[in-house]
Amino acid sequence: MSEREQLEGRNVVIEALRRKRRKVREIMMDERARPGSKVDELVELAAQQGVPVKKVPREMLDRRSETGVHNGVLAWADALEAHTTHSLLDTLAREGVDPFLVLVDEVQYEHNLGAILRSAMGAGVNGVIVPVRRGKGMSPVVSRVAMGGAEVVPLVREGLSSSLATLRRAGVRVVGCDMDGDPLWSVPLTGPIALVLGGEDKGLSSTLRDRCDQVASVPLEWGLDSLNVSVTAALFMFERQRQVLQGAPPWTRQQAGRG
Amino acid sequence: MSEREQLEGRNVVIEALRRKRRKVREIMMDERARPGSKVDELVELAAQQGVPVKKVPREMLDRRSETGVHNGVLAWADALEAHTTHSLLDTLAREGVDPFLVLVDEVQYEHNLGAILRSAMGAGVNGVIVPVRRGKGMSPVVSRVAMGGAEVVPLVREGLSSSLATLRRAGVRVVGCDMDGDPLWSVPLTGPIALVLGGEDKGLSSTLRDRCDQVASVPLEWGLDSLNVSVTAALFMFERQRQVLQGAPPWTRQQAGRG
Repeated sequence: MSEREQLEGRNVVIEALRRKRRKVREIMMDERARPGSKVDELVELAAQQGVPVKKVPREMLDRRSETGVHNGVLAWADALEAHTTHSLLDTLAREGVDPFLVLVDEVQYEHNLGAILRSAMGAGVNGVIVPVRRGKGMSPVVSRVAMGGAEVVPLVREGLSSSLATLRRAGVRVVGCDMDGDPLWSVPLTGPIALVLGGEDKGLSSTLRDRCDQVASVPLEWGLDSLNVSVTAALFMFERQRQVLQGAPPWTRQQAGRG
Repeated sequence: MSEREQLEGRNVVIEALRRKRRKVREIMMDERARPGSKVDELVELAAQQGVPVKKVPREMLDRRSETGVHNGVLAWADALEAHTTHSLLDTLAREGVDPFLVLVDEVQYEHNLGAILRSAMGAGVNGVIVPVRRGKGMSPVVSRVAMGGAEVVPLVREGLSSSLATLRRAGVRVVGCDMDGDPLWSVPLTGPIALVLGGEDKGLSSTLRDRCDQVASVPLEWGLDSLNVSVTAALFMFERQRQVLQGAPPWTRQQAGRG
């Protein structure tokens, strides 16, 4: 039991059952949970996968919840497969997918890491890489805030220098997200790419900044220093999506418009 | 004293002194605060404006802080001028500025409202409008998370139906940010505009949705339902910035590319 992870909240548990990246071992559900599309899907998926669902009084869930927000569902599952940057790149190469990765240095708040994983899922990111020793890693709060993102997007814990070395050797373009860079909308973000962000309230360290192929910024009014790190991350992740989905790269269009 | 607001954190207090939208009455600072660019600016601005700065033990700040994160600075200031949608539009018209407003229905978490105000400042938004009775309004936590945004961007508390009626009479285009709309990158967001968002985990109410000129969405992978409301708000606010700063509107470019 000690290596199992506790999952909290309907969305998280459903996503774990849907993605099947790990075995869910046990589910506890509020005995007074009313049937509805999400509850029904959860019960059906659990039945298909032979996962026992125990109906319990809400007070028991309250007592065992570590996040305080369980929406009537707790579950215990095997830990997710641990990835390194190297093993992740191998997997993506086998699947024929361009790496789209996000590295974040020293995230102190679990809510920020959770929010980054949620946005990463929505933007189709293939992995989020955070340092081993400093900052936050996976936890019930991170997983709950990620709303299922933690089941879909691998979270790699690895030294960022080592990770960046691996990425560069594999030909992945590295873009730093920091102040005093080019406006993000004019920076090519399609193809194999890694976005690198500093933690809260600090920019990129000079060591990390030096290892980027290009530094890009969100232009800010009123002399504002920075945005919340999860907001900055989302703006960059979805800017890539824009460039991919809109087809023509913006730097070409911009040149065309000005030519 | 009872009508004064408590401001917490260096960034917030400096921004209040810089913007001068309200009189700061008193500042308390950690007696062991080391000089540095921010502390120096704060002391200098306070001296220029005749605001007393009292050096106190850190424990006193800890005790009086409502947010738990004061960075060695607390201040008390007059309340900000209360705006209505109408008075805000009048002010913007006098200044010759296109209204760029954000309406958010029922934000339950102070951190989300604070994060929206911080991004709103960075994106050059002229006002954020929230309902009177439901959801959160200004508080020390909102103001601290906003990192000065609350000193720059007026927060209007007004029924959203009444606010939208005023906006439409004034010729402001109303774009709803919700599921099942057009991809935000193909929706014109320049000119006088109001973005309308639902609160956390709910979409727009059908009443609000019906009052929008157009509904736009962030395209999401993996069947993800939604992003955090402060992330969605930021994606839309900065998409407007992109359209404004990049010049040519994307819907023209897209047509040109396909023609």
